[in-house]
Amino acid sequence: MIRYTFLVVLIVGLGFCGMAQNKALVFQSDFGLKDGAVSEMKGVAFSVSPELKLFDVTHEIPAYNIWEAAYRLFQAAPYWPPGTVFVSIVDPGVGSERKSVVLKTKSGHYFVSPDNGTLTLVAERLGIDEVRQINEAVNRLKNSEKSYTFHGRDVYAFTGARLASGTIRWEEVGPKLAPQVVSIDYQKPVIENGIIKGNIPVLDVQYGNVWTNIDQTIFQKLGVKLNDKLHVIVYKDQQTIFEGDMPYVNTFSAVPEGQTMAYMNSLLNFSVAINQGSFSEKYKVYSGAEWSIVIRKTNR
Amino acid sequence: MIRYTFLVVLIVGLGFCGMAQNKALVFQSDFGLKDGAVSEMKGVAFSVSPELKLFDVTHEIPAYNIWEAAYRLFQAAPYWPPGTVFVSIVDPGVGSERKSVVLKTKSGHYFVSPDNGTLTLVAERLGIDEVRQINEAVNRLKNSEKSYTFHGRDVYAFTGARLASGTIRWEEVGPKLAPQVVSIDYQKPVIENGIIKGNIPVLDVQYGNVWTNIDQTIFQKLGVKLNDKLHVIVYKDQQTIFEGDMPYVNTFSAVPEGQTMAYMNSLLNFSVAINQGSFSEKYKVYSGAEWSIVIRKTNR
Amino acid sequence: MIRYTFLVVLIVGLGFCGMAQNKALVFQSDFGLKDGAVSEMKGVAFSVSPELKLFDVTHEIPAYNIWEAAYRLFQAAPYWPPGTVFVSIVDPGVGSERKSVVLKTKSGHYFVSPDNGTLTLVAERLGIDEVRQINEAVNRLKNSEKSYTFHGRDVYAFTGARLASGTIRWEEVGPKLAPQVVSIDYQKPVIENGIIKGNIPVLDVQYGNVWTNIDQTIFQKLGVKLNDKLHVIVYKDQQTIFEGDMPYVNTFSAVPEGQTMAYMNSLLNFSVAINQGSFSEKYKVYSGAEWSIVIRKTNR
Repeated sequence: MIRYTFLVVLIVGLGFCGMAQNKALVFQSDFGLKDGAVSEMKGVAFSVSPELKLFDVTHEIPAYNIWEAAYRLFQAAPYWPPGTVFVSIVDPGVGSERKSVVLKTKSGHYFVSPDNGTLTLVAERLGIDEVRQINEAVNRLKNSEKSYTFHGRDVYAFTGARLASGTIRWEEVGPKLAPQVVSIDYQKPVIENGIIKGNIPVLDVQYGNVWTNIDQTIFQKLGVKLNDKLHVIVYKDQQTIFEGDMPYVNTFSAVPEGQTMAYMNSLLNFSVAINQGSFSEKYKVYSGAEWSIVIRKTNR
Repeated sequence: MIRYTFLVVLIVGLGFCGMAQNKALVFQSDFGLKDGAVSEMKGVAFSVSPELKLFDVTHEIPAYNIWEAAYRLFQAAPYWPPGTVFVSIVDPGVGSERKSVVLKTKSGHYFVSPDNGTLTLVAERLGIDEVRQINEAVNRLKNSEKSYTFHGRDVYAFTGARLASGTIRWEEVGPKLAPQVVSIDYQKPVIENGIIKGNIPVLDVQYGNVWTNIDQTIFQKLGVKLNDKLHVIVYKDQQTIFEGDMPYVNTFSAVPEGQTMAYMNSLLNFSVAINQGSFSEKYKVYSGAEWSIVIRKTNR
Repeated sequence: MIRYTFLVVLIVGLGFCGMAQNKALVFQSDFGLKDGAVSEMKGVAFSVSPELKLFDVTHEIPAYNIWEAAYRLFQAAPYWPPGTVFVSIVDPGVGSERKSVVLKTKSGHYFVSPDNGTLTLVAERLGIDEVRQINEAVNRLKNSEKSYTFHGRDVYAFTGARLASGTIRWEEVGPKLAPQVVSIDYQKPVIENGIIKGNIPVLDVQYGNVWTNIDQTIFQKLGVKLNDKLHVIVYKDQQTIFEGDMPYVNTFSAVPEGQTMAYMNSLLNFSVAINQGSFSEKYKVYSGAEWSIVIRKTNR
């Protein structure tokens, strides 16, 4: 009996010791890494609970680029376990009427962000379970009331850390809102008469590869086999920026150095690239809502 | 009795398990992130104690810029809890007669750094409790005696890790010095006849906003209300670089896109900016000891 | 007896709690930090075990530059404790016939990497204990089979995390290969007739200092004393890029600002620099296999 009691205490104790460290808080922003802003946010989170594991998506989102913030979150979040709390601060409207929210997705991830479009893609992909507005009366760093402009540190990082560490329960974030988020309009991929049209959401910046939002399911409807030739056109608004043929391959080394190729990227989306070169730089192809791509099998 | 003994052991054990992980070691340097130097420092710290939590302020301090190192430390440190150990390496005088010290502030933070001016602003803001010179006879990575140029790794990171992890006590850092640090001369903010003059210590680099050292307490003496117009002049040495009027607002979205504005930044210092633009780039205003700013209420 | 049992459980339990956190997983890549790729790898590793400590060498290896990947690993690895697992992804041949391996060095470090030359220098320096090919049938993130191009996340990060966390034993990585790795040919340092010739493997990029592969043991054979003058020639292939005299010193401040100097860097390799300036920029000296350096004592 004594033995049993002790074991329970021991197991609960060790369990707590372990569990308390199993929560990741993952930051994203357009702050860059040159000043101390990201460090201030992490200091606030660490002060809430030194047991939290702090990570990053990126802090190099181009300033005020909500679309790219949405895409990077969409790209990285599925690889983190349920329960992970993301804090994303790309906030051109800081201080305006945009709401500060936390989105809980059906996948069990949490996203702390201004509700300005940043949540567009994770809401679509992971599903909305609930949305709550942050109650800043309680979820705000003490003595920060006089600061109007660093919500990222005083409200978002603070609230994310409290939620991830279990300092507050989900219900204590603030009042429940309708299960929806502000969404950016963007062109969805479509297939018609053997032609697929889609959007170029981002570049694979480090290499200059061009990624699209055309996923495997749609692409398969084109009936393309490995090494088939594809005809690819890239538009900026209505203007043709690139037009050419290239093989569909499953590895960069399948084409000679310097040659164009089409492939499925690591997110299983249709992409075009140059083996060991930058497609983006060579053809001046960039990304955003105004960029579209059209693909079909090359006529024989 | 047995039960009591075990519980004590259990609690002490678990307490140790938890406490050992509550210490943050926060790095700053001008090394950049392109080579392995920061990783070498973290490897040394991790070797001292794998329980340490390792973080960063920034490693993008411009090379040899002691003033900016001082400012970034000043900016970030207050958001980390007492007991946090900072290791800052911006050291143009490496190998010269500058001392290697650890500053303990009245706030309970520790700063490991060459005593070359880096500690100017944290000493002023957080108060000097004690200063100790690092005894390199004991606080130096083994077998590193032949290396003359990477004190950051062999002495500073090593000593910081030993202090943060409790491997050495504060007294074991080395001999106590007079409670002072080498300080950089810079213009303090002053108000006279309704005119405030101050310095531009740094830019908010990512956005191009211009921060000053004029804090809220001084600024309030000007009697400015929200939306009042201010007349702002920026000098580099004696030369006028910018002169203009702008409203004092509490949020970026209070002015149209592209328009100048004055506001209190997240450190509660007076700042000027362009909503969704770069004040610095547009008007060629930069930061440092030679930059000053003069503000008054606009004449009616 | 009961007491003994409990203590064993307690100690084992606490030991596990502590030990499980003593393993570092250290990432390196040419992905940069602008997109979510590094975060995806860390999310996968964190999902394998939230107890892992995740760090980085650098993610700013120039795209596809295997030589620099080899050098950065060589530079940083010795400062991490035995048992540390490194995951390095610079992989121009992704999808080609290069093998995915884990190198265990005699020093007890592990390196997960494509076997494409990245392991050249750590194998030389730390010694090869064993090499195993990753068995992707078991050591691959579930449901990632359709992705051909992000081995970094699905195989390398996943396998590294499983190995570091003890989820798999060393033998479970995959079949044992011959104890060798693919090696890049590069010029070793030689001394003949009082002249040393060597290679410039990398720059100290942040400062523009020029590092060589001429270590202390060879350099000492030249019989140089502090403040002796050296004659230094730098070649790119056969072309002379720099030729000049400079003193051998043990600290940057030993020469006036702006002046050339020779010294031993933090890796105890012969290097040349300009005090508070960039040798590389001023003289257009860069690094790589085609760069060599020749030094001798200045004729009197």
